[in-house]
Amino acid sequence: MRPAVGYRATAAGAVERWAFERRDTREDDVVVAVDFCGVCFTDLHAVRTWPESQDPTPLVPGHEFVGTVVDIGSAVTEFAVGDPVAVGNIVDSCGVCDMCRAGQENFCREFPTLTYGGKDRRDGSTTHGAYSNEYVVRDSFVYHRPAGLDPAAVAPLMCAGITVWEPLRRWKVGPGTRVGIVGIGGLGHLAVKFAAALGADVTVFTTTSDKSAAATALGAHHVVVSTDDGAMDAQIGTLDFIVDCVPVQHDPAPYLRCLALDGTLCQVGFLGPTQVDAMDLLVGRKSFSSAGSGGRPYTQEMLDFCGEHGIVADVEVMASARVNDALERLGRGDVRYRFSLDMSDLR
Amino acid sequence: MRPAVGYRATAAGAVERWAFERRDTREDDVVVAVDFCGVCFTDLHAVRTWPESQDPTPLVPGHEFVGTVVDIGSAVTEFAVGDPVAVGNIVDSCGVCDMCRAGQENFCREFPTLTYGGKDRRDGSTTHGAYSNEYVVRDSFVYHRPAGLDPAAVAPLMCAGITVWEPLRRWKVGPGTRVGIVGIGGLGHLAVKFAAALGADVTVFTTTSDKSAAATALGAHHVVVSTDDGAMDAQIGTLDFIVDCVPVQHDPAPYLRCLALDGTLCQVGFLGPTQVDAMDLLVGRKSFSSAGSGGRPYTQEMLDFCGEHGIVADVEVMASARVNDALERLGRGDVRYRFSLDMSDLR
Repeated sequence: MRPAVGYRATAAGAVERWAFERRDTREDDVVVAVDFCGVCFTDLHAVRTWPESQDPTPLVPGHEFVGTVVDIGSAVTEFAVGDPVAVGNIVDSCGVCDMCRAGQENFCREFPTLTYGGKDRRDGSTTHGAYSNEYVVRDSFVYHRPAGLDPAAVAPLMCAGITVWEPLRRWKVGPGTRVGIVGIGGLGHLAVKFAAALGADVTVFTTTSDKSAAATALGAHHVVVSTDDGAMDAQIGTLDFIVDCVPVQHDPAPYLRCLALDGTLCQVGFLGPTQVDAMDLLVGRKSFSSAGSGGRPYTQEMLDFCGEHGIVADVEVMASARVNDALERLGRGDVRYRFSLDMSDLR
Repeated sequence: MRPAVGYRATAAGAVERWAFERRDTREDDVVVAVDFCGVCFTDLHAVRTWPESQDPTPLVPGHEFVGTVVDIGSAVTEFAVGDPVAVGNIVDSCGVCDMCRAGQENFCREFPTLTYGGKDRRDGSTTHGAYSNEYVVRDSFVYHRPAGLDPAAVAPLMCAGITVWEPLRRWKVGPGTRVGIVGIGGLGHLAVKFAAALGADVTVFTTTSDKSAAATALGAHHVVVSTDDGAMDAQIGTLDFIVDCVPVQHDPAPYLRCLALDGTLCQVGFLGPTQVDAMDLLVGRKSFSSAGSGGRPYTQEMLDFCGEHGIVADVEVMASARVNDALERLGRGDVRYRFSLDMSDLR
């Protein structure tokens, strides 16, 4: 086993430094020295609910990270020591179901192995995340990281980024598409950058007018304050596709009204039960959908696109020792738009 | 004004014979002698709720009918006296909004004028439906009826038919498409016929096995009893598109699970609030949609397709004088699959 160090959840709903072990390198494993790991809302939720879960298994968060290859298994051909790489929230899948065969490992019928809190498909152990100095991962779920991008700012692409990239691509967003992005946070700010770079006409919906300048800076062509009834009425029927990044339960009806004929609203922020009135869909034959995470082809495609267009997340970098500050500030929405933990202090 | 006779709703929630007047022919009007009118669930609902509505305006139901042109206005060029025609549940629209310009008058931004209980866009009068000897209608909303089809069985195509035709076409159902139809009633039985004739592989979901033979006779390739958990599990991930014709509020989750990657469930039966769990959509990136009625291009296309393929509704023809029997039996689901009222007894 390989000695490792990282941060695990505590009974107080925070994290603490923890020394543990990772598996010895399998033949198809890549060992990644973690350089930066993004702080996802999922991490915060996992850490805060861990004390209630009564699960004694240690929880090490972190599922959007970049690093450098420091070792490879004997059968690994796609990576070499020294390669700059990135890993997201999936580290394995069954590989044989219809979804995996379609390159949508995120929808694996056997459920994909998550980067932390997942169950390794070979030895049954619990996966520990990348709030850590090192990660051992099957080669199929490691991605080449384009040169020329700030690594700290690439990390959030691997969860926040791919979650909005995949729907933008599946719904064929490009020149001529009128796209709405609801909510400008970790997901939404990347959705704006992607949609604009794809050539779409981008409208941002935000609850407060003080985010207008920021939305425009991200590439939005129009900003609508969603609490302004007149402004919302002016948007009726004007959009082909909406990515709804609001992370809490909410009524999608005001945004469904903004869709044009055959438009789709894809909810990626809140993933629980939502009441939808069929009449709000019927008029205009609209669709309500959802998406999350990404398959391997779309993930590599996103990274390549970001390399070509110089797109990264807007991050605030923090030394990993300050991870509890990052979690606490994320909890009150005090970040534009993602924290990226610098793991060099764990070396 | 033109003297007319028909059936209006009563305080007892039934209908009674009523003599009234229709407008004089405008320059773009077509006067249709009604031969047959389908009995839609909407009619039953309208008649039964009319006493509670406290609205003194007489209600004459009927919005899927066929007939023969008996008079035309001076500017009508597309129709001549003697033409066999059909009319659906929309008799006018604004004509200038984005939806009307797209040929989707059913989604008119100003709301289309309904065939009964609507407000005429020129004189403000309430429209009276086709449970009547005659109907006066703007030429744009009259359709040519193909030769060789039983007129009584064509009438239900104009509401039940177009409501399922449009989604089948918008979601490009054809050879290679795996289509599910939930519920075999007025809408569902036509959805099966259409989907099969379009070349799709058709699976019918029904609550009781006694409808299996009927579903197969309509053209279904597979029948699944939705109360059989094992049979439902076997359908997981197998369908590209589902038309859900169940007319009451229900959980779409069991059917969403049957969708393959990027599949869509289109709810056309129940048009109220429905709770959808985003996680049921996320896994497989599925969509929940709705549709209803149809635009002019799709409506004429459906009629032409039915003429080419010899498709009509399965109807039980009743003399119009027995309309209350038809409504009462429809109320308890005792019809396969649509009543068609023969209006010749009103001549």
